[in-house]
Amino acid sequence: MLSNTTVTQMSFPHHDFLSIKELSRDEITAILDLAEHYVVQNRRKSQTNVLLRGCMVINLFLENSTRTRLSFEIAAKRLGADVVNMAAEGSSIHKGESFVDTLKSINAMLPDVLVIRHAANGAAADAAKILDCPVINGGDGTNEHPTQALLDALTLKRRFGKLEGLRVAICGDILHSRVAKSNMELMEKMGVHVSCVGPKELLPDLPNATSDMKTGLKDADAVMVLRIQKERLQKTLSFTDEDYFNAFGLTAEKLKYAKPGAVIMHPGPMNRGVEIEAALADDPNLSLITTQVEMGVATRMACLDLVTRKTRR
Amino acid sequence: MLSNTTVTQMSFPHHDFLSIKELSRDEITAILDLAEHYVVQNRRKSQTNVLLRGCMVINLFLENSTRTRLSFEIAAKRLGADVVNMAAEGSSIHKGESFVDTLKSINAMLPDVLVIRHAANGAAADAAKILDCPVINGGDGTNEHPTQALLDALTLKRRFGKLEGLRVAICGDILHSRVAKSNMELMEKMGVHVSCVGPKELLPDLPNATSDMKTGLKDADAVMVLRIQKERLQKTLSFTDEDYFNAFGLTAEKLKYAKPGAVIMHPGPMNRGVEIEAALADDPNLSLITTQVEMGVATRMACLDLVTRKTRR
Amino acid sequence: MLSNTTVTQMSFPHHDFLSIKELSRDEITAILDLAEHYVVQNRRKSQTNVLLRGCMVINLFLENSTRTRLSFEIAAKRLGADVVNMAAEGSSIHKGESFVDTLKSINAMLPDVLVIRHAANGAAADAAKILDCPVINGGDGTNEHPTQALLDALTLKRRFGKLEGLRVAICGDILHSRVAKSNMELMEKMGVHVSCVGPKELLPDLPNATSDMKTGLKDADAVMVLRIQKERLQKTLSFTDEDYFNAFGLTAEKLKYAKPGAVIMHPGPMNRGVEIEAALADDPNLSLITTQVEMGVATRMACLDLVTRKTRR
Repeated sequence: MLSNTTVTQMSFPHHDFLSIKELSRDEITAILDLAEHYVVQNRRKSQTNVLLRGCMVINLFLENSTRTRLSFEIAAKRLGADVVNMAAEGSSIHKGESFVDTLKSINAMLPDVLVIRHAANGAAADAAKILDCPVINGGDGTNEHPTQALLDALTLKRRFGKLEGLRVAICGDILHSRVAKSNMELMEKMGVHVSCVGPKELLPDLPNATSDMKTGLKDADAVMVLRIQKERLQKTLSFTDEDYFNAFGLTAEKLKYAKPGAVIMHPGPMNRGVEIEAALADDPNLSLITTQVEMGVATRMACLDLVTRKTRR
Repeated sequence: MLSNTTVTQMSFPHHDFLSIKELSRDEITAILDLAEHYVVQNRRKSQTNVLLRGCMVINLFLENSTRTRLSFEIAAKRLGADVVNMAAEGSSIHKGESFVDTLKSINAMLPDVLVIRHAANGAAADAAKILDCPVINGGDGTNEHPTQALLDALTLKRRFGKLEGLRVAICGDILHSRVAKSNMELMEKMGVHVSCVGPKELLPDLPNATSDMKTGLKDADAVMVLRIQKERLQKTLSFTDEDYFNAFGLTAEKLKYAKPGAVIMHPGPMNRGVEIEAALADDPNLSLITTQVEMGVATRMACLDLVTRKTRR
Repeated sequence: MLSNTTVTQMSFPHHDFLSIKELSRDEITAILDLAEHYVVQNRRKSQTNVLLRGCMVINLFLENSTRTRLSFEIAAKRLGADVVNMAAEGSSIHKGESFVDTLKSINAMLPDVLVIRHAANGAAADAAKILDCPVINGGDGTNEHPTQALLDALTLKRRFGKLEGLRVAICGDILHSRVAKSNMELMEKMGVHVSCVGPKELLPDLPNATSDMKTGLKDADAVMVLRIQKERLQKTLSFTDEDYFNAFGLTAEKLKYAKPGAVIMHPGPMNRGVEIEAALADDPNLSLITTQVEMGVATRMACLDLVTRKTRR
């Protein structure tokens, strides 16, 4: 970990925070170190941070979300920012206004940061072209969810003391998952070995993808379980929830394919009894699921802190 | 009333604020005294309180509400807290996440207080088992609505100078009303005589319950009018709104059954012309309905103040 | 422009901010000068204003809106106020509570300002009769939208250095537009010549109204384009969107009827290809559409500042 001074003073070379793809290995390391700093601060409850005092963060969530919107809102408020939420419901988008015009209007209100979640791939990058202020991608379609990948990495790093050399199995609907995509980008950069496992119709065409749980989970230090993104499916699935649970739902039994003591992660929301056995999700020794949520707030504080370094007063 | 020093410094022995049932008579008195202190402060408009600065209050309202959500939000902000609202709409609960997982996620974000409203009895107590921070019950099913009972008590105490020995008639849908339930708990503890009056199908099986308005309102110092909780009815009512108004709707005429000068209360929202005559609801001498709303903010400030005394910085 | 001292210290003779009708020419000038002051402040990003610290602004938006709610929320937060949003969804209005009772409840919570948008004409004035605190009209039915007219005037004044003597053509659905109505009120007071142009069924019966674009746009310094308020139409239109675009949609071609270099304005939300050609809306030299949004925040800051001058601490 960098020294506190280094981490809290380093500059961030990117204007926006759009994807893991654009980040270097060193940048990822630095973000994780800064997030770590916020984990400590949040636990100490010394939360009267004034770093972003007078800053206006707009949370534009055009796709349903609890966890991520809440996480960004809490992160911004913990840094002392003002937060304005804007959701699809009740918005002019229903009066026929185009996405571009919505963004231009938001820009004209001179926010300091825009956090955006949108159902279309590339929406955050499009927003960044229009907005003068930094844009943070809170998830765009099936493309990227960079803060999720970072919080997952922070969770793993804190558990194992390192990322390099770890083996992670991602299990479930990889094809439609921006979480999987951002994680695979990050893990490749950080030297983490990834395997993908799930039903053929939900797997990308990759050499490390398999529909055999035993192969997929072999030697894994961590199993990252994903839900089936039913809202993104183009066609009906060939199996029921019960079939899925039997074949791919993570159970204590199937977890034995992984390394002894392998941990379990899930980005949420979680469907117990579908992609994961309820008891396993709650196992305090193996499940890092709530830790991920905690890391989420700290990671988003790091991102908000970094992207505003050039502009804030 | 306790001295200001006593009230603002006393400690609160409960971790959460879940029900009137768990409060002693002395605790209720102390809460009302502290709420009184906030009434004065709010009217003076010296509202730049910093007591909860740096505290994060999450308002989890999984049942429709205006008044209560607004009241808690204003109460928390008047104390200097940051408030994050989370409603059923737009939440992961629609993606199939369980209530327990929602609570675990919220807990992992390290809030300082959770205020919860939920359609299921016991939901606030369930939340308190999961959350590390204090939980305040903002209404759970047909079980309890403790802050409402306290604000009603504060309203009565300010009007009559005392609670002990007062007679209160609760009129309407007692069976489905958490407001009635919490009020009856509180009034019994504070020595207030309660009678319940309403149609048989909406009355609990209690000795003080009657369907005769004359008997029910006899000698009442205050009539607490409740709306019919149509959203909680198991079967169709045997009467129309008009029938109901004729039999149980509070009018100037029926109010004569009570003590001369008896006051009128209603927790809202109010259906004029159904459970209460419009003119009566607006009578500035008899109706305490808007006073109840004012007392609500002060009472919730007292609750937020008390539950955070052990943890806040 | 008044000196900064004058502007920031002048008193405002009105309790509420309900309509352009009630404002004098001098008052309008003073508001625009104060708004100008906030434009400068906002661009400087010196946004840690504490003018309204400890003030509670309630945003009651009972009609869908993005831009205006967001604009008021940002304006209030830039002044240091606490903001509480209340929308139609999730409100007690669905449990049968009357508008009057909602307002009485809000009043009892002792807010410092109420901003209200409502589908009924006169709703803001009705609210002002009930609320003790100042009420700002954020748009009421087809009646008035005074802050929009002021922001439009500010936009024009900054472009042309004056208002007096300008010629403005308002083009579109004048009949159902509170924006048009407030603008016409303001422009008459400030010596701006207005013409109205649109299909007969959407025009008021006024001498300056025409369905001939050439006549309507003649000599205009600015063309203010309005969308068709489909949600307010009593009957089906006799034309399609395409017909409308051909006849009245503002294009580079039709803009030639106006003065050379005439500017384009639109209060948003905008339907590109219906009331305006997309390329024209985006023309950085002619379109002031995003400038209007920026002026909106500054204008609302001025209004919030002015109405609270008597009461704030």
